[in-house]
Amino acid sequence: MAEYFKNIQKIEYAGPESNDPLAFHHYNADEKILGKTMKEHLRFGACYWHNFCWDGADVFGQGTFGRPWLKPGDAMERAKQKADVAFEFFSKIGVPYYSFHDIDVSPEGNSIKEYVNNFAQMTDVLEQKQAETGLQLLWGTANAFSNPRYAAGASTNPNPEVFTYAATQVFNAMNATKRLGGSNYVLWGGREGYESLLNTDLRQEREQMGRFMQMVVEHKHKIGFKGTLLIEPKPQEPTKHQYDYDTATVYGFLKQFGLEDEIKVNIEVNHATLAGHSFQHEIATAISLGLFGSIDANRGDAQNGWDTDQFPIDVPELTLVMTDILKAGGFENGGFMFDTKLRRQSTDPADMFHGHIGGMDHLALALKKAAAIVEKDFLGDAVANRYRNWNGDLGKAISKGEHSLESLAAYAVDNEISPQHESGQQELLENQVNRVLFG
Amino acid sequence: MAEYFKNIQKIEYAGPESNDPLAFHHYNADEKILGKTMKEHLRFGACYWHNFCWDGADVFGQGTFGRPWLKPGDAMERAKQKADVAFEFFSKIGVPYYSFHDIDVSPEGNSIKEYVNNFAQMTDVLEQKQAETGLQLLWGTANAFSNPRYAAGASTNPNPEVFTYAATQVFNAMNATKRLGGSNYVLWGGREGYESLLNTDLRQEREQMGRFMQMVVEHKHKIGFKGTLLIEPKPQEPTKHQYDYDTATVYGFLKQFGLEDEIKVNIEVNHATLAGHSFQHEIATAISLGLFGSIDANRGDAQNGWDTDQFPIDVPELTLVMTDILKAGGFENGGFMFDTKLRRQSTDPADMFHGHIGGMDHLALALKKAAAIVEKDFLGDAVANRYRNWNGDLGKAISKGEHSLESLAAYAVDNEISPQHESGQQELLENQVNRVLFG
Amino acid sequence: MAEYFKNIQKIEYAGPESNDPLAFHHYNADEKILGKTMKEHLRFGACYWHNFCWDGADVFGQGTFGRPWLKPGDAMERAKQKADVAFEFFSKIGVPYYSFHDIDVSPEGNSIKEYVNNFAQMTDVLEQKQAETGLQLLWGTANAFSNPRYAAGASTNPNPEVFTYAATQVFNAMNATKRLGGSNYVLWGGREGYESLLNTDLRQEREQMGRFMQMVVEHKHKIGFKGTLLIEPKPQEPTKHQYDYDTATVYGFLKQFGLEDEIKVNIEVNHATLAGHSFQHEIATAISLGLFGSIDANRGDAQNGWDTDQFPIDVPELTLVMTDILKAGGFENGGFMFDTKLRRQSTDPADMFHGHIGGMDHLALALKKAAAIVEKDFLGDAVANRYRNWNGDLGKAISKGEHSLESLAAYAVDNEISPQHESGQQELLENQVNRVLFG
Amino acid sequence: MAEYFKNIQKIEYAGPESNDPLAFHHYNADEKILGKTMKEHLRFGACYWHNFCWDGADVFGQGTFGRPWLKPGDAMERAKQKADVAFEFFSKIGVPYYSFHDIDVSPEGNSIKEYVNNFAQMTDVLEQKQAETGLQLLWGTANAFSNPRYAAGASTNPNPEVFTYAATQVFNAMNATKRLGGSNYVLWGGREGYESLLNTDLRQEREQMGRFMQMVVEHKHKIGFKGTLLIEPKPQEPTKHQYDYDTATVYGFLKQFGLEDEIKVNIEVNHATLAGHSFQHEIATAISLGLFGSIDANRGDAQNGWDTDQFPIDVPELTLVMTDILKAGGFENGGFMFDTKLRRQSTDPADMFHGHIGGMDHLALALKKAAAIVEKDFLGDAVANRYRNWNGDLGKAISKGEHSLESLAAYAVDNEISPQHESGQQELLENQVNRVLFG
Repeated sequence: MAEYFKNIQKIEYAGPESNDPLAFHHYNADEKILGKTMKEHLRFGACYWHNFCWDGADVFGQGTFGRPWLKPGDAMERAKQKADVAFEFFSKIGVPYYSFHDIDVSPEGNSIKEYVNNFAQMTDVLEQKQAETGLQLLWGTANAFSNPRYAAGASTNPNPEVFTYAATQVFNAMNATKRLGGSNYVLWGGREGYESLLNTDLRQEREQMGRFMQMVVEHKHKIGFKGTLLIEPKPQEPTKHQYDYDTATVYGFLKQFGLEDEIKVNIEVNHATLAGHSFQHEIATAISLGLFGSIDANRGDAQNGWDTDQFPIDVPELTLVMTDILKAGGFENGGFMFDTKLRRQSTDPADMFHGHIGGMDHLALALKKAAAIVEKDFLGDAVANRYRNWNGDLGKAISKGEHSLESLAAYAVDNEISPQHESGQQELLENQVNRVLFG
Repeated sequence: MAEYFKNIQKIEYAGPESNDPLAFHHYNADEKILGKTMKEHLRFGACYWHNFCWDGADVFGQGTFGRPWLKPGDAMERAKQKADVAFEFFSKIGVPYYSFHDIDVSPEGNSIKEYVNNFAQMTDVLEQKQAETGLQLLWGTANAFSNPRYAAGASTNPNPEVFTYAATQVFNAMNATKRLGGSNYVLWGGREGYESLLNTDLRQEREQMGRFMQMVVEHKHKIGFKGTLLIEPKPQEPTKHQYDYDTATVYGFLKQFGLEDEIKVNIEVNHATLAGHSFQHEIATAISLGLFGSIDANRGDAQNGWDTDQFPIDVPELTLVMTDILKAGGFENGGFMFDTKLRRQSTDPADMFHGHIGGMDHLALALKKAAAIVEKDFLGDAVANRYRNWNGDLGKAISKGEHSLESLAAYAVDNEISPQHESGQQELLENQVNRVLFG
Repeated sequence: MAEYFKNIQKIEYAGPESNDPLAFHHYNADEKILGKTMKEHLRFGACYWHNFCWDGADVFGQGTFGRPWLKPGDAMERAKQKADVAFEFFSKIGVPYYSFHDIDVSPEGNSIKEYVNNFAQMTDVLEQKQAETGLQLLWGTANAFSNPRYAAGASTNPNPEVFTYAATQVFNAMNATKRLGGSNYVLWGGREGYESLLNTDLRQEREQMGRFMQMVVEHKHKIGFKGTLLIEPKPQEPTKHQYDYDTATVYGFLKQFGLEDEIKVNIEVNHATLAGHSFQHEIATAISLGLFGSIDANRGDAQNGWDTDQFPIDVPELTLVMTDILKAGGFENGGFMFDTKLRRQSTDPADMFHGHIGGMDHLALALKKAAAIVEKDFLGDAVANRYRNWNGDLGKAISKGEHSLESLAAYAVDNEISPQHESGQQELLENQVNRVLFG
Repeated sequence: MAEYFKNIQKIEYAGPESNDPLAFHHYNADEKILGKTMKEHLRFGACYWHNFCWDGADVFGQGTFGRPWLKPGDAMERAKQKADVAFEFFSKIGVPYYSFHDIDVSPEGNSIKEYVNNFAQMTDVLEQKQAETGLQLLWGTANAFSNPRYAAGASTNPNPEVFTYAATQVFNAMNATKRLGGSNYVLWGGREGYESLLNTDLRQEREQMGRFMQMVVEHKHKIGFKGTLLIEPKPQEPTKHQYDYDTATVYGFLKQFGLEDEIKVNIEVNHATLAGHSFQHEIATAISLGLFGSIDANRGDAQNGWDTDQFPIDVPELTLVMTDILKAGGFENGGFMFDTKLRRQSTDPADMFHGHIGGMDHLALALKKAAAIVEKDFLGDAVANRYRNWNGDLGKAISKGEHSLESLAAYAVDNEISPQHESGQQELLENQVNRVLFG
């Protein structure tokens, strides 16, 4: 396909003073922060699905974008045009990574054979595109939720043939991900949940999902895939309730099936907030449980109860998250994937650039601010001071398991303890953080 | 203390036709349902705290109830008056069980020694009351959240002396629970959570809580307590985020510390809804994970974001939950504890009776309706039919672990599978349930 | 088109004892309740859009229903097939009314002229169908939110030509509604709201909407339409914020533009709950403000933050609403329109019947229960007693405007008033209602 | 009372580079922004109630702060000590204004006469304190929600004597506010709502509230009070539903009782978010309806469903609000009142300073950022451009009322209009705002 974004050149770093809306003001890929380049820290990826497979339709209205490659036509031809436009965009926006679902890049076809065949051809196309552009694959995944066959779930479907169909897609998508050098493989259980408990066997569905994930792990090792396996938690939507509700829920699932050392989480901001958590909560929880993998960077609307997948603009929130990530050593295989949708009203071709420039700039800014916080580490000092007594005799003895309720009760009464609360200094710490953010 | 509810006699069963508001219309303790009496099925308990330790204050206003035993005076005298009124109420309302926190029944005193001493005396009083009335203890617990020392948590406090103070309370409360023949011991971590991630070490606090719970289990076995240990999940309030967010979260915690066979959950309806789940979801999840223990029966307000602890009146919801409980074999040690608050405007002494009569009648009705559902078991039949293919060759082979992604992909392509979705029949099942409820 | 629901006969009343899922168990159209037939009280309507214009797609997946009349083909032919199936369904389910948007029944065409022409032809078709079947039109409306031209609103669009396009549709839809004998004309402002305050002029958009509604009222009078004009409040979705947020908001809008005697509200259950209100709240508010018009009967999911449009099954809630409606004198021109969607998994043709049978039976049951409440009217008695003192001297003088703050302060001090709170008896009243519901 | 905050001096401006946590980094009272000093723009006020009448209790625990003036003792002595500490704080923090409820500053007493008498004495004390310190009163109000007599509302109470008691308090509080030179008088209807529709007469209660507000307006004019009357909207809490739900609801109420030119709104951030709106939404709505009065500056927690009243720290949100306020001409009589609570864990005396320093600095920063936005006014330009066609012939004719639906339909068809959507450029505008915020 001919160049689609004709009037837009590759986006360059122009610095904070520039007024050019089609330039970066903070994201300077090769600038070093705490010893690594921004590119290495942030590992930005753009997505295939919202950008190139969606025409702006919502539940109440038709598509508004008028994307030419989504018009009727020969399916494989359209898929190749889509790949042309996608790689044009990825290159111009300057992300080092991209991600896709199998059927984002390749037509489903009219049979499972056609599916396999189409996908094999399109994997060749992608391989060539990667070679031409230098783009890399952050993660691959299989869409086992859009086709009507998955209406009642994929691995948790009441019909084992549907389970099998999903297994076939994941088999092919994992193999393609390996071949394309993907850093991770993601599993989002879009329909792995229930609409009604009246017709659902929770234990049965959980066992099915457990076995499915074990097979995914086994296949990873069999083919020697070196990337990370990631589950993406989401509490609901499209189903009333999804089994991978949030990070804490996924942790319990992984422990049950012995998978906690094999699978990590891909945390999406908007899924965190739909689950009743802050973004930082989900990240901090994943880090504390050893499950932190990757991030779907976007944001929800605090007043709307569905996945709005807007571009991230909340620099204060992003800074706190970035601080936690820096302290945890940064991404290993993960990155910031923009699982973001343009607003349905944002119909100019340039809008896709504005959205991503904003996301990249805001995260770059958050990185710079977080580095400043980590360098002083007044938060680390405050926390260390707050828990200091756990390094004393009593604290150590408890931690080592040397105490029982009985021995502690004796200690308490014998010493007539009367511990007093110390201020948590939340307002002070909030002010200190904001002084870094806006100082 | 002299009789407080002077004009109210013991509440009796008067049948559905009666118009007496101070009688039961459905709860007939000795009536048999599916082979057990209602009393045995429902195991009702009334609580000490909301009924006798709270005077109707809320964040925006003073107490409205004017309870005489909460006026200033000699603390131990007031505690004994409170016990008189409490057991008068428990006896007149006709619940077989009650529950308490240590400091509901006994003054905290001015030192840990006074605490221990007061509580020992009041345990004697309770023992005598139980003997006089035949009341039994559904569960005991320790309040490690109201005193200012617990402002930053009990087991998760940054100060190990606070941890120790909490351990002392739990030690005494477990011992008292055993002595009083309690069926369960409950742990609700009211302040086990955080207000701000800025000053919180999630991993440290989780380790502390894990060790605390291990000590609780060790102590149970040491003293030979035969009841069930229960964690009560709640997502937030009073803290911004509580660690025992919901049943799925508690499951992960228990697995991490090897406690999943030792501790079950005490599910509160209003905590379920604050966590973004239906009551039935939490019960069904607990049953499917083998964690179902007991229930704090109440309800929230669908439009209000805090714990309103209203009396349960939603018979359709209660019926579905009761259906799940009957199918799971009923309560073992647990029961329906009314963790319920009168509305602040409900200032007549009789209102405490109206609330509990409603709760008991609605649950009794739900039991009768659930028995009707279980006897026909059209829901079980629908579920069995929906998953029937998992009993076929393919389903069995997958379940037994005989398949890999690769073998399934080969099967799918070789057989050119094209599974079709079958209707989930949700509307039909909803109608069938309602025909039992209202038919 | 040939008969589509081939195996389904006209649904008949079979009584509560029947086990036939394809029969009514409570809705007995000609049964009299409080002097009117059920049919007259309930004025049931079925909708064109969800039933016949939607194939089961959601944001995450394709359609599952496979409706033949939605397949590609000649647009007018498809529209006529759709009308055949729709009227087959309306007749078999036995609703006396139906409702439609202009472009539900008629293809939009490729120009405004085609639109006008197509709609005129299809109005003829509908007129003939009505004559053949006896069906009547509960209300008509125009869809001014799905086409991309309305992405930024219809009457509130930044472009007056879009306003004009919407005016054209409403002009044609009002005329068609009059010709077809419609009882009401509805306006739902699906995109009358904003996505972002950054690009929105609230005052300008409100003025535009005000003028639009004035023109609607003027046109009603000009053409002599005798039905009721209705605004349908909704708080958000598809837009971040909609201007007709809830009944109270609509009231303020109507007062500003002098329309409060000309336009009433069409309250949708699921819109009420998305706005943070109970269904009963919205109905009671509309009645108290003199705005009660009609109802879109459905329900949301208490755990999901979007419009799920499920069939109504909550008999207790429906009963309270029906009680309020009976006391207010019942519907004038309004009715219960099933603005309901099948679950995406409910793919059997019979499911559309199960859903509507449930809705009709549950509302019929609610009518019977409400009649019982109204006959005894213990709620009315309780309310009258609670406010009784407003009929005393002080109350009457205040109500008549005979007092000032100053005179009341003098009265209070002179009489040393010390009024005491009386119990609101909420728990007692809840029990009494439930005894009618389940007694 | 002796100096309470002994170690804390008057807070001074130290500039952005300072590391002193007990200094302002952005609030420089006399610095001019767009022609007015910061002090004049922001009109900061501190509150009596949360700071000096609350000891840190919440529903689940006792007070943690240990304020000496809240200990038992002679009520009037305690009230004078409280006034000493309050004015010490107000002076040291450097706000020009404060606000109070009648019973914040003065004991309720045991009779209405004692109430009147105590309040008169304490008004003298406050007058003297104002004279000594130069502090001014931003607004006064009466607490007609905490005392048990108000359990069922004040003006909306079922008992007209309670209405009268409330009238007496408002009479005295308005008179005191006038005498103390207050800029505004506020009415928050904390219990003006319902717990249950079962026992509530909505129309009656609305009439009562309407008459009450008319009396307030009449009294204002009678005594010649020149300040602004303000209603403070809140959706719920403490009641299930409050009548002054949000700004749009208050507008309808005011219109009904002819008060829309007499009363404006006092918008609280956390009340806005509890009502399902953004803070900016409520401000922009009030401005567009001509109701903007004053602001209770605080913030809620996006994950918690109750009023957390935290100090404002969200500079991006505050900047957008400040932009709207600047464009609307700034405050007339209103100001930013810190209706803020310390966290219950923030038990150091200095924490009260940290909280307010943060609030004042973040709003000062927001003012500087907003001035930058207003000076360039790229938002204004974008909006003007977006609606530009309303200045064309068609737009003007519609706005002037020269068109009907019929004439517009004729215009549309005659001109074969086919208007196309233009991009709303939301992402671009968001980026531009963030460049000002963080550039």
